[in-house]
Amino acid sequence: MGKNRLEAFSDGVLAIIITIMVLELKIPEEQGIEALLLMVSTFLSYVLSFIYVGIYWNNHHHLLHTLHRVTGPILWANLHLLFWLSLFPFASGWMGANPSAAVPSVLYGMVLLMASIAYHVLQKLIINTEGGNSILKQAIGKDRKGKISMLAHIAAAGLAMIQPWVAQALYAIVALLWLIPDRRIERMLYNTEEEGKSIK
Amino acid sequence: MGKNRLEAFSDGVLAIIITIMVLELKIPEEQGIEALLLMVSTFLSYVLSFIYVGIYWNNHHHLLHTLHRVTGPILWANLHLLFWLSLFPFASGWMGANPSAAVPSVLYGMVLLMASIAYHVLQKLIINTEGGNSILKQAIGKDRKGKISMLAHIAAAGLAMIQPWVAQALYAIVALLWLIPDRRIERMLYNTEEEGKSIK
Amino acid sequence: MGKNRLEAFSDGVLAIIITIMVLELKIPEEQGIEALLLMVSTFLSYVLSFIYVGIYWNNHHHLLHTLHRVTGPILWANLHLLFWLSLFPFASGWMGANPSAAVPSVLYGMVLLMASIAYHVLQKLIINTEGGNSILKQAIGKDRKGKISMLAHIAAAGLAMIQPWVAQALYAIVALLWLIPDRRIERMLYNTEEEGKSIK
Amino acid sequence: MGKNRLEAFSDGVLAIIITIMVLELKIPEEQGIEALLLMVSTFLSYVLSFIYVGIYWNNHHHLLHTLHRVTGPILWANLHLLFWLSLFPFASGWMGANPSAAVPSVLYGMVLLMASIAYHVLQKLIINTEGGNSILKQAIGKDRKGKISMLAHIAAAGLAMIQPWVAQALYAIVALLWLIPDRRIERMLYNTEEEGKSIK
Repeated sequence: MGKNRLEAFSDGVLAIIITIMVLELKIPEEQGIEALLLMVSTFLSYVLSFIYVGIYWNNHHHLLHTLHRVTGPILWANLHLLFWLSLFPFASGWMGANPSAAVPSVLYGMVLLMASIAYHVLQKLIINTEGGNSILKQAIGKDRKGKISMLAHIAAAGLAMIQPWVAQALYAIVALLWLIPDRRIERMLYNTEEEGKSIK
Repeated sequence: MGKNRLEAFSDGVLAIIITIMVLELKIPEEQGIEALLLMVSTFLSYVLSFIYVGIYWNNHHHLLHTLHRVTGPILWANLHLLFWLSLFPFASGWMGANPSAAVPSVLYGMVLLMASIAYHVLQKLIINTEGGNSILKQAIGKDRKGKISMLAHIAAAGLAMIQPWVAQALYAIVALLWLIPDRRIERMLYNTEEEGKSIK
Repeated sequence: MGKNRLEAFSDGVLAIIITIMVLELKIPEEQGIEALLLMVSTFLSYVLSFIYVGIYWNNHHHLLHTLHRVTGPILWANLHLLFWLSLFPFASGWMGANPSAAVPSVLYGMVLLMASIAYHVLQKLIINTEGGNSILKQAIGKDRKGKISMLAHIAAAGLAMIQPWVAQALYAIVALLWLIPDRRIERMLYNTEEEGKSIK
Repeated sequence: MGKNRLEAFSDGVLAIIITIMVLELKIPEEQGIEALLLMVSTFLSYVLSFIYVGIYWNNHHHLLHTLHRVTGPILWANLHLLFWLSLFPFASGWMGANPSAAVPSVLYGMVLLMASIAYHVLQKLIINTEGGNSILKQAIGKDRKGKISMLAHIAAAGLAMIQPWVAQALYAIVALLWLIPDRRIERMLYNTEEEGKSIK
């Protein structure tokens, strides 16, 4: 199978996920401003998930950019990633409808975590296929951003049990970390991390 | 990322938006002609929104036509535009179900306005990337049509608070302005506007 | 705009229409065979509409095959066709849920009719753009198949007022006329038609 | 019609099927962990169907790989396959909601069976079109995997009448047979089969 087919199919699935998520914004029975106010949390959850799918779409392209040969395992690792992303509409809609409940926010974090793990597995497979001098490997370096994200998702899913809004804030911060291409913020974060390591 | 990927993904999302909007036409429980008559406003709202998405799809192509390099900001400005367009099914369905209520018609106008602002931002970014002799810049000129649309959306959203049907008529007129390629109507509108300016 | 963009967008919309139609097959509350039997008419309506969208997809390709230049009117005539096709899920689901009622079957016929008119308009525009020696014009000849379909849709929509099942049978027969590439059947139909004309 | 159009359209439909299936995971009214536990069977059914659509997407590519000329019958055989795959969301959602009921599990098996028959028909048509030295024919050999799958689907649909979970286990095993590229397992299965034949 050519790389183009894999890209086109993934793009199709991502385009559908990002769009059907809006179906969770159910048209209210009422016609007043109160009806809209009741939907604020659902709307914010939709915005957050839209940004996450956008980030995955963006990163997915860079990931496949250096790929030359689509093997069976890469094909299935890609479908595995799409599977977890396909759960975004469900997890997002449930958290949006129950912003102050623990379990929906935990679930959202777990879907984010599983998606980031699936992404990591796909990345590993592509690097292995490309061999020692993989361009992708050089580009991502130690992939600190990816690892920080995973740790933040785990921490947030745990914190959601106690304070859902803290978890929700963390989900938003991780999204901003990927969205804003501010090198200084990233460098600061990484330096602090490295200093922490050297202190230990 | 190549331009083709951006176009294909945008086309995919627009195709899905224009199609899932029809899901707001809920199949009635009844089987008589009265059931259909109750849906007339929902149907008209669907027609209007279908035309708007069609206009955006058409304009989006011309916008990307001159683009050579997809930068991070352009990618996100494009997703920002798709985000507001993705709210069309919701806003359209709510206005269609409550044609004589103020808030749904205000919301529809605000979604139209945000989409036109997002389009304007994307346009600016592409012109800036292309540099001084941008073909796009020469093609759109002062973009009076775009500015008139924005002003009309603001006016309509305001009028919707008092008379929803006036706002709905304005939304339809703006759509026709883009749909009908009658140069004389446009010239007349622009001349009147310029005379107004020179009088002041 | 290039022809490829128009084709890709149309294909996307048609793929979504043909697929979301299945959402009208609501999962029953019950778990027995009776629940399925209650859905037979909805299922048959789905099969019929699936075939119609398939026919349109097939014909649409041949239509665009000879096209070289996408003009504004062709672009909008194409969206006009997609608009009527987008109503298939609604009309199909309503007829399927009320197979013995008149109005849903009339509506189904009217959507079929409007789609065939929109197709005809698009065809005319393409032939006009291509000029006198249009390959498309030579290929379709007098387009008797298209005209017979339109007449059959009108007749069926009328008959549905009296006997819905007669209309439904006619819708199925017209679909078969396009589906089965049996030249003899077509020739027989056309000959009979021409004999009828020469008798008058 | 070129092969690319057929592939792109099929990919579009498959991407939509695999994604709208998630809409059967209805967002629960409740917000606790019990609400999620009630959905375990629906989730597992979704996972299974996601894998099946993934397998069909994968195999479909290899099927079309050697195709050079798209004939009318091939086009309709392909739509016929897409039709049965389009019933996956319905059959999967119904079985997931009623895991211990007989009829939904029988239906799931019948949809699987019809899809595999439709795939087989498409395969035959492509081999016939390609002629005697068809690469596809050599590649699939006697297509034992395909035949075993069909027999397993029939057996499972029958067993579902008595013990739904046995059928469900068989559906999962057939999926694994296609998913895991373990040559030894396949060889063992085929050898046992051939020994069985030679004994008779």
